[in-house]
Amino acid sequence: MPARFELHGIAFSGPTYKVGLMLTLAGEPFDYVHVNMMAGEHKQAAHMARQRYGQVPLLVDRSNGRHLCQSAAILEYLADMTGRFGGATLDERLQAREWLYWDFDRLASQIYRARTIKLGIRPAHPEVYEAHVAGGNAALKVLDQHLTGRSWVVGESATIADIDLYGVVAYAGEAGIDLAPYAQIAPWMARVEALPGFKGPRDLLPMESREAA
Amino acid sequence: MPARFELHGIAFSGPTYKVGLMLTLAGEPFDYVHVNMMAGEHKQAAHMARQRYGQVPLLVDRSNGRHLCQSAAILEYLADMTGRFGGATLDERLQAREWLYWDFDRLASQIYRARTIKLGIRPAHPEVYEAHVAGGNAALKVLDQHLTGRSWVVGESATIADIDLYGVVAYAGEAGIDLAPYAQIAPWMARVEALPGFKGPRDLLPMESREAA
Repeated sequence: MPARFELHGIAFSGPTYKVGLMLTLAGEPFDYVHVNMMAGEHKQAAHMARQRYGQVPLLVDRSNGRHLCQSAAILEYLADMTGRFGGATLDERLQAREWLYWDFDRLASQIYRARTIKLGIRPAHPEVYEAHVAGGNAALKVLDQHLTGRSWVVGESATIADIDLYGVVAYAGEAGIDLAPYAQIAPWMARVEALPGFKGPRDLLPMESREAA
Repeated sequence: MPARFELHGIAFSGPTYKVGLMLTLAGEPFDYVHVNMMAGEHKQAAHMARQRYGQVPLLVDRSNGRHLCQSAAILEYLADMTGRFGGATLDERLQAREWLYWDFDRLASQIYRARTIKLGIRPAHPEVYEAHVAGGNAALKVLDQHLTGRSWVVGESATIADIDLYGVVAYAGEAGIDLAPYAQIAPWMARVEALPGFKGPRDLLPMESREAA
Protein backbone atom coordinates (compact mmCIF):
# COMPACT_ATOMS: atom_id res chain seq x y z
CA MET A 1 0.00 0.00 0.00
CA PRO A 2 1.49 3.38 -0.91
CA ALA A 3 2.09 5.85 1.87
CA ARG A 4 -0.73 8.24 2.68
CA PHE A 5 1.51 11.29 2.37
CA GLU A 6 3.71 12.42 -0.50
CA LEU A 7 6.20 15.19 0.27
CA HIS A 8 7.70 17.23 -2.55
CA GLY A 9 10.74 19.32 -1.76
CA ILE A 10 14.50 19.62 -1.70
CA ALA A 11 16.82 18.33 0.98
CA PHE A 12 18.44 21.75 1.33
CA SER A 13 15.13 23.44 2.21
CA GLY A 14 14.41 24.20 5.86
CA PRO A 15 10.64 24.34 5.26
CA THR A 16 10.79 20.92 3.54
CA TYR A 17 12.75 19.57 6.52
CA LYS A 18 10.12 20.89 8.98
CA VAL A 19 7.39 18.91 7.25
CA GLY A 20 9.57 15.79 6.97
CA LEU A 21 10.38 16.09 10.68
CA MET A 22 6.69 16.34 11.58
CA LEU A 23 5.90 13.25 9.51
CA THR A 24 8.70 11.16 10.97
CA LEU A 25 7.94 12.24 14.56
CA ALA A 26 4.27 11.41 13.97
CA GLY A 27 5.28 7.98 12.68
CA GLU A 28 3.84 8.62 9.22
CA PRO A 29 5.86 7.07 6.40
CA PHE A 30 5.92 9.29 3.31
CA ASP A 31 6.95 9.09 -0.29
CA TYR A 32 9.42 11.78 -1.19
CA VAL A 33 9.59 13.60 -4.50
CA HIS A 34 12.75 15.59 -5.17
CA VAL A 35 11.94 18.85 -6.97
CA ASN A 36 14.72 19.78 -9.34
CA MET A 37 14.78 23.51 -8.68
CA MET A 38 18.01 23.88 -10.67
CA ALA A 39 15.99 22.80 -13.69
CA GLY A 40 13.13 25.13 -12.72
CA GLU A 41 10.68 22.34 -11.93
CA HIS A 42 9.13 24.43 -9.14
CA LYS A 43 7.92 27.00 -11.69
CA GLN A 44 6.53 24.50 -14.17
CA ALA A 45 2.80 24.00 -14.62
CA ALA A 46 2.70 20.51 -13.10
CA HIS A 47 4.09 21.81 -9.81
CA MET A 48 2.33 25.20 -9.87
CA ALA A 49 -1.02 23.47 -10.35
CA ARG A 50 -0.63 22.09 -6.84
CA GLN A 51 1.77 24.59 -5.25
CA ARG A 52 0.42 27.97 -6.30
CA TYR A 53 3.41 29.90 -4.95
CA GLY A 54 5.96 27.96 -6.97
CA GLN A 55 7.79 27.00 -3.79
CA VAL A 56 8.63 23.90 -1.80
CA PRO A 57 7.40 22.03 0.15
CA LEU A 58 4.22 20.59 -1.29
CA LEU A 59 2.35 17.92 0.63
CA VAL A 60 -0.16 15.61 -1.04
CA ASP A 61 -2.63 13.80 1.20
CA ARG A 62 -3.59 10.79 -0.88
CA SER A 63 -6.42 9.88 1.48
CA ASN A 64 -8.46 12.83 0.19
CA GLY A 65 -6.51 14.25 -2.75
CA ARG A 66 -5.63 17.48 -0.97
CA HIS A 67 -2.46 19.32 -1.85
CA LEU A 68 -1.09 21.72 0.71
CA CYS A 69 1.38 24.60 0.62
CA GLN A 70 3.32 26.60 3.22
CA SER A 71 5.26 24.59 5.78
CA ALA A 72 3.52 26.01 8.86
CA ALA A 73 0.06 25.52 7.35
CA ILE A 74 1.09 21.94 6.59
CA LEU A 75 2.19 21.41 10.20
CA GLU A 76 -1.22 22.67 11.39
CA TYR A 77 -2.95 20.36 8.92
CA LEU A 78 -0.91 17.35 9.98
CA ALA A 79 -1.54 18.08 13.66
CA ASP A 80 -5.27 18.08 12.96
CA MET A 81 -5.19 15.01 10.71
CA THR A 82 -2.86 12.82 12.79
CA GLY A 83 -3.88 14.03 16.24
CA ARG A 84 -0.20 14.52 17.08
CA PHE A 85 1.67 17.56 18.36
CA GLY A 86 -1.37 19.84 18.28
CA GLY A 87 -1.27 20.64 21.98
CA ALA A 88 -3.28 19.19 24.86
CA THR A 89 -6.07 21.77 24.74
CA LEU A 90 -7.58 24.33 22.38
CA ASP A 91 -5.67 27.04 24.22
CA GLU A 92 -2.38 25.22 23.58
CA ARG A 93 -3.37 24.82 19.93
CA LEU A 94 -3.99 28.57 19.68
CA GLN A 95 -0.69 29.34 21.39
CA ALA A 96 1.18 27.03 19.04
CA ARG A 97 -0.33 28.90 16.10
CA GLU A 98 0.79 32.23 17.56
CA TRP A 99 4.33 30.91 17.71
CA LEU A 100 4.16 29.72 14.09
CA TYR A 101 3.15 33.18 12.89
CA TRP A 102 5.74 34.81 15.13
CA ASP A 103 8.35 32.48 13.64
CA PHE A 104 7.40 33.39 10.08
CA ASP A 105 7.44 37.09 10.94
CA ARG A 106 10.50 37.34 13.17
CA LEU A 107 12.74 34.27 13.08
CA ALA A 108 12.45 32.17 9.91
CA SER A 109 12.39 35.18 7.61
CA GLN A 110 15.72 36.29 9.09
CA ILE A 111 17.60 33.00 9.58
CA TYR A 112 16.60 31.41 6.29
CA ARG A 113 17.50 34.54 4.32
CA ALA A 114 20.79 35.00 6.16
CA ARG A 115 21.58 31.37 5.33
CA THR A 116 20.93 31.69 1.60
CA ILE A 117 23.18 34.76 1.50
CA LYS A 118 25.89 33.14 3.64
CA LEU A 119 25.93 30.04 1.45
CA GLY A 120 26.19 32.15 -1.70
CA ILE A 121 22.88 30.98 -3.12
CA ARG A 122 21.38 34.46 -3.25
CA PRO A 123 24.14 37.07 -3.09
CA ALA A 124 23.27 40.31 -1.30
CA HIS A 125 24.91 43.44 0.04
CA PRO A 126 26.75 42.85 3.37
CA GLU A 127 24.39 45.31 5.09
CA VAL A 128 21.42 43.16 4.07
CA TYR A 129 23.08 40.08 5.53
CA GLU A 130 23.88 41.95 8.74
CA ALA A 131 20.28 43.16 9.03
CA HIS A 132 19.06 39.55 8.82
CA VAL A 133 21.60 38.45 11.44
CA ALA A 134 20.54 41.28 13.77
CA GLY A 135 16.87 40.42 13.30
CA GLY A 136 17.56 36.73 13.84
CA ASN A 137 19.44 37.44 17.06
CA ALA A 138 16.63 39.67 18.34
CA ALA A 139 14.16 36.85 17.71
CA LEU A 140 16.42 34.20 19.27
CA LYS A 141 16.57 36.33 22.42
CA VAL A 142 12.76 36.30 22.62
CA LEU A 143 12.68 32.53 22.17
CA ASP A 144 15.49 32.00 24.68
CA GLN A 145 13.76 34.09 27.35
CA HIS A 146 10.48 32.27 26.71
CA LEU A 147 12.15 28.88 27.21
CA THR A 148 13.51 29.84 30.62
CA GLY A 149 11.87 27.48 33.09
CA ARG A 150 10.08 25.58 30.31
CA SER A 151 10.80 22.31 28.56
CA TRP A 152 8.69 23.06 25.50
CA VAL A 153 7.48 26.17 23.71
CA VAL A 154 3.83 25.48 24.56
CA GLY A 155 2.47 23.34 27.41
CA GLU A 156 4.11 20.25 28.85
CA SER A 157 5.03 18.32 25.72
CA ALA A 158 6.30 18.87 22.20
CA THR A 159 3.96 20.59 19.73
CA ILE A 160 4.16 21.84 16.16
CA ALA A 161 5.58 25.06 17.64
CA ASP A 162 8.70 23.13 18.70
CA ILE A 163 8.91 21.31 15.36
CA ASP A 164 8.50 24.53 13.38
CA LEU A 165 11.00 26.52 15.43
CA TYR A 166 13.52 23.66 15.56
CA GLY A 167 13.34 23.52 11.76
CA VAL A 168 14.61 27.10 11.70
CA VAL A 169 17.05 27.21 14.61
CA ALA A 170 18.80 24.08 13.31
CA TYR A 171 20.08 26.23 10.42
CA ALA A 172 21.43 29.09 12.54
CA GLY A 173 25.01 27.84 12.19
CA GLU A 174 24.80 27.76 8.39
CA ALA A 175 23.37 31.29 8.58
CA GLY A 176 26.47 32.38 10.48
CA ILE A 177 24.55 32.97 13.71
CA ASP A 178 26.11 31.75 16.96
CA LEU A 179 23.68 30.11 19.37
CA ALA A 180 26.12 30.14 22.31
CA PRO A 181 24.67 33.32 23.90
CA TYR A 182 21.28 31.62 24.28
CA ALA A 183 21.50 29.35 27.30
CA GLN A 184 18.04 27.78 26.92
CA ILE A 185 18.25 26.97 23.23
CA ALA A 186 20.72 24.06 23.26
CA PRO A 187 18.92 22.09 26.00
CA TRP A 188 15.60 22.65 24.20
CA MET A 189 17.11 21.46 20.91
CA ALA A 190 18.44 18.37 22.71
CA ARG A 191 14.91 17.62 23.95
CA VAL A 192 13.57 17.81 20.40
CA GLU A 193 16.42 15.59 19.19
CA ALA A 194 15.54 13.01 21.84
CA LEU A 195 11.97 12.60 20.56
CA PRO A 196 11.29 9.11 19.13
CA GLY A 197 11.79 9.12 15.37
CA PHE A 198 13.83 12.31 15.30
CA LYS A 199 16.21 12.78 12.37
CA GLY A 200 18.39 15.76 11.52
CA PRO A 201 18.24 17.63 8.21
CA ARG A 202 21.03 15.59 6.63
CA ASP A 203 19.58 12.24 7.65
CA LEU A 204 15.91 12.81 6.94
CA LEU A 205 15.66 13.89 3.31
CA PRO A 206 17.49 12.20 0.44
CA MET A 207 18.90 14.02 -2.58
CA GLU A 208 16.56 12.18 -4.93
CA SER A 209 13.01 10.86 -4.96
CA ARG A 210 12.31 7.85 -2.76
CA GLU A 211 9.31 5.76 -1.86
CA ALA A 212 8.44 5.09 1.75
CA ALA A 213 10.24 2.05 3.16
CA MET B 1 -22.99 46.02 28.24
CA PRO B 2 -19.30 46.29 27.41
CA ALA B 3 -18.15 45.03 24.04
CA ARG B 4 -17.07 41.41 23.83
CA PHE B 5 -13.71 42.29 22.29
CA GLU B 6 -11.00 44.61 23.53
CA LEU B 7 -8.29 45.52 21.03
CA HIS B 8 -4.95 46.88 22.24
CA GLY B 9 -2.71 48.52 19.69
CA ILE B 10 -1.54 51.67 17.99
CA ALA B 11 -3.22 53.43 15.11
CA PHE B 12 0.04 53.42 13.15
CA SER B 13 0.34 49.62 13.24
CA GLY B 14 -0.69 47.66 10.17
CA PRO B 15 -1.23 44.48 12.21
CA THR B 16 -3.48 46.40 14.62
CA TYR B 17 -5.41 47.77 11.65
CA LYS B 18 -5.91 44.26 10.22
CA VAL B 19 -7.62 43.12 13.42
CA GLY B 20 -9.71 46.28 13.66
CA LEU B 21 -10.76 45.81 10.05
CA MET B 22 -11.83 42.21 10.72
CA LEU B 23 -13.87 43.32 13.72
CA THR B 24 -15.62 46.13 11.91
CA LEU B 25 -16.34 44.01 8.82
CA ALA B 26 -17.74 41.29 11.09
CA GLY B 27 -19.97 43.87 12.78
CA GLU B 28 -18.33 43.37 16.18
CA PRO B 29 -18.02 46.57 18.23
CA PHE B 30 -14.79 46.64 20.23
CA ASP B 31 -13.22 48.68 22.97
CA TYR B 32 -9.88 50.07 21.93
CA VAL B 33 -6.86 50.50 24.20
CA HIS B 34 -4.07 52.70 22.88
CA VAL B 35 -0.67 51.26 23.82
CA ASN B 36 1.80 54.04 24.46
CA MET B 37 4.81 52.47 22.77
CA MET B 38 6.75 55.74 23.05
CA ALA B 39 6.56 55.28 26.82
CA GLY B 40 7.48 51.59 26.48
CA GLU B 41 4.12 50.26 27.62
CA HIS B 42 4.42 47.30 25.25
CA LYS B 43 7.43 45.99 27.19
CA GLN B 44 5.93 46.45 30.63
CA ALA B 45 4.75 43.51 32.72
CA ALA B 46 1.04 44.32 32.46
CA HIS B 47 1.18 44.07 28.66
CA MET B 48 3.74 41.26 28.47
CA ALA B 49 1.59 39.12 30.77
CA ARG B 50 -0.96 38.97 27.96
CA GLN B 51 1.17 39.65 24.88
CA ARG B 52 4.24 37.50 25.36
CA TYR B 53 6.09 38.98 22.38
CA GLY B 54 5.82 42.55 23.66
CA GLN B 55 4.14 43.58 20.42
CA VAL B 56 0.80 44.92 19.27
CA PRO B 57 -1.94 44.01 18.64
CA LEU B 58 -3.38 42.18 21.61
CA LEU B 59 -6.99 41.00 21.50
CA VAL B 60 -8.93 40.17 24.66
CA ASP B 61 -12.05 38.04 24.27
CA ARG B 62 -14.07 38.96 27.34
CA SER B 63 -16.52 36.13 26.73
CA ASN B 64 -13.90 33.60 27.84
CA GLY B 65 -10.98 35.63 29.17
CA ARG B 66 -8.66 34.63 26.32
CA HIS B 67 -5.91 36.97 25.23
CA LEU B 68 -4.51 36.50 21.75
CA CYS B 69 -1.34 37.59 19.97
CA GLN B 70 -0.20 37.77 16.34
CA SER B 71 -2.54 39.49 13.91
CA ALA B 72 -3.00 36.53 11.56
CA ALA B 73 -3.64 34.12 14.43
CA ILE B 74 -6.23 36.62 15.72
CA LEU B 75 -7.92 36.72 12.29
CA GLU B 76 -8.13 32.92 12.32
CA TYR B 77 -9.56 33.00 15.84
CA LEU B 78 -12.14 35.64 14.96
CA ALA B 79 -13.18 33.74 11.82
CA ASP B 80 -13.80 30.66 13.97
CA MET B 81 -15.54 32.55 16.77
CA THR B 82 -17.76 34.82 14.67
CA GLY B 83 -18.36 32.47 11.76
CA ARG B 84 -17.39 35.29 9.38
CA PHE B 85 -14.78 35.38 6.60
CA GLY B 86 -13.50 31.87 7.26
CA GLY B 87 -14.31 30.57 3.78
CA ALA B 88 -17.25 28.54 2.57
CA THR B 89 -15.63 25.13 3.07
CA LEU B 90 -12.79 23.50 4.97
CA ASP B 91 -10.71 23.62 1.81
CA GLU B 92 -11.22 27.36 1.53
CA ARG B 93 -10.33 27.73 5.21
CA LEU B 94 -7.08 25.81 4.60
CA GLN B 95 -6.29 27.91 1.53
CA ALA B 96 -6.90 31.13 3.45
CA ARG B 97 -4.40 29.94 6.07
CA GLU B 98 -1.81 29.22 3.38
CA TRP B 99 -2.16 32.81 2.17
CA LEU B 100 -1.76 34.14 5.70
CA TYR B 101 1.53 32.28 6.14
CA TRP B 102 2.65 33.28 2.67
CA ASP B 103 1.89 36.91 3.55
CA PHE B 104 3.92 36.75 6.75
CA ASP B 105 6.81 35.12 4.91
CA ARG B 106 6.86 37.05 1.65
CA LEU B 107 4.76 40.22 1.70
CA ALA B 108 4.16 41.69 5.17
CA SER B 109 7.74 41.15 6.29
CA GLN B 110 8.90 43.22 3.32
CA ILE B 111 6.27 46.00 3.08
CA TYR B 112 6.01 46.68 6.80
CA ARG B 113 9.79 46.84 7.21
CA ALA B 114 10.23 49.02 4.12
CA ARG B 115 7.59 51.34 5.58
CA THR B 116 9.26 51.73 8.98
CA ILE B 117 12.54 52.55 7.23
CA LYS B 118 10.91 54.94 4.74
CA LEU B 119 9.09 56.80 7.53
CA GLY B 120 12.34 57.13 9.51
CA ILE B 121 11.09 55.08 12.45
CA ARG B 122 13.83 52.47 12.16
CA PRO B 123 16.72 53.84 10.12
CA ALA B 124 18.58 51.33 7.97
CA HIS B 125 21.17 51.18 5.23
CA PRO B 126 19.74 52.05 1.77
CA GLU B 127 20.59 48.54 0.55
CA VAL B 128 18.42 47.06 3.29
CA TYR B 129 15.52 49.26 2.23
CA GLU B 130 16.03 48.32 -1.41
CA ALA B 131 16.08 44.61 -0.51
CA HIS B 132 12.70 44.98 1.22
CA VAL B 133 11.28 46.87 -1.77
CA ALA B 134 12.53 44.18 -4.16
CA GLY B 135 11.07 41.42 -1.98
CA GLY B 136 7.78 43.30 -1.67
CA ASN B 137 7.54 43.73 -5.43
CA ALA B 138 8.26 40.04 -6.02
CA ALA B 139 5.45 39.13 -3.64
CA LEU B 140 3.03 41.68 -5.15
CA LYS B 141 3.65 40.07 -8.54
CA VAL B 142 2.61 36.69 -7.14
CA LEU B 143 -0.55 38.19 -5.62
CA ASP B 144 -1.35 40.13 -8.79
CA GLN B 145 -1.05 37.03 -10.96
CA HIS B 146 -3.18 35.03 -8.55
CA LEU B 147 -5.96 37.66 -8.67
CA THR B 148 -6.20 37.47 -12.46
CA GLY B 149 -9.69 36.23 -13.20
CA ARG B 150 -10.64 36.20 -9.54
CA SER B 151 -12.60 38.60 -7.36
CA TRP B 152 -11.21 37.34 -4.07
CA VAL B 153 -8.03 35.61 -2.93
CA VAL B 154 -9.90 32.43 -1.96
CA GLY B 155 -13.27 31.24 -3.22
CA GLU B 156 -16.18 33.45 -4.25
CA SER B 157 -16.35 35.89 -1.37
CA ALA B 158 -14.10 37.81 1.01
CA THR B 159 -12.14 35.83 3.59
CA ILE B 160 -9.51 36.57 6.22
CA ALA B 161 -6.97 36.15 3.41
CA ASP B 162 -8.32 39.32 1.77
CA ILE B 163 -8.49 41.17 5.09
CA ASP B 164 -4.95 40.14 6.03
CA LEU B 165 -3.43 40.99 2.66
CA TYR B 166 -5.38 44.25 2.33
CA GLY B 167 -3.97 45.26 5.72
CA VAL B 168 -0.49 45.01 4.21
CA VAL B 169 -1.00 46.25 0.65
CA ALA B 170 -2.78 49.37 1.97
CA TYR B 171 0.62 50.51 3.31
CA ALA B 172 2.58 49.98 0.09
CA GLY B 173 2.50 53.71 -0.72
CA GLU B 174 3.96 54.67 2.66
CA ALA B 175 6.61 52.01 2.05
CA GLY B 176 7.54 53.74 -1.20
CA ILE B 177 6.25 50.90 -3.34
CA ASP B 178 4.22 51.78 -6.44
CA LEU B 179 1.19 49.57 -7.03
CA ALA B 180 0.61 50.85 -10.58
CA PRO B 181 2.39 47.88 -12.28
CA TYR B 182 -0.09 45.45 -10.73
CA ALA B 183 -3.30 45.65 -12.74
CA GLN B 184 -5.35 43.32 -10.55
CA ILE B 185 -4.47 44.88 -7.20
CA ALA B 186 -6.44 48.17 -7.41
CA PRO B 187 -9.76 46.54 -8.45
CA TRP B 188 -9.34 43.95 -5.68
CA MET B 189 -8.64 46.69 -3.12
CA ALA B 190 -11.78 48.51 -4.32
CA ARG B 191 -13.79 45.33 -3.72
CA VAL B 192 -12.49 45.11 -0.16
CA GLU B 193 -13.23 48.82 0.36
CA ALA B 194 -16.83 48.26 -0.82
CA LEU B 195 -17.53 45.66 1.88
CA PRO B 196 -20.16 46.82 4.40
CA GLY B 197 -18.49 48.37 7.43
CA PHE B 198 -15.14 48.95 5.74
CA LYS B 199 -12.93 51.70 7.13
CA GLY B 200 -9.45 52.73 6.09
CA PRO B 201 -6.47 52.83 8.47
CA ARG B 202 -6.92 56.53 9.28
CA ASP B 203 -10.63 56.24 9.97
CA LEU B 204 -10.75 53.00 11.94
CA LEU B 205 -8.35 53.43 14.86
CA PRO B 206 -8.21 56.52 17.06
CA MET B 207 -5.02 57.93 18.56
CA GLU B 208 -6.23 57.26 22.09
CA SER B 209 -8.25 54.67 23.98
CA ARG B 210 -11.97 54.57 23.24
CA GLU B 211 -14.92 52.47 24.32
CA ALA B 212 -17.21 50.92 21.75
CA ALA B 213 -20.00 53.26 20.71
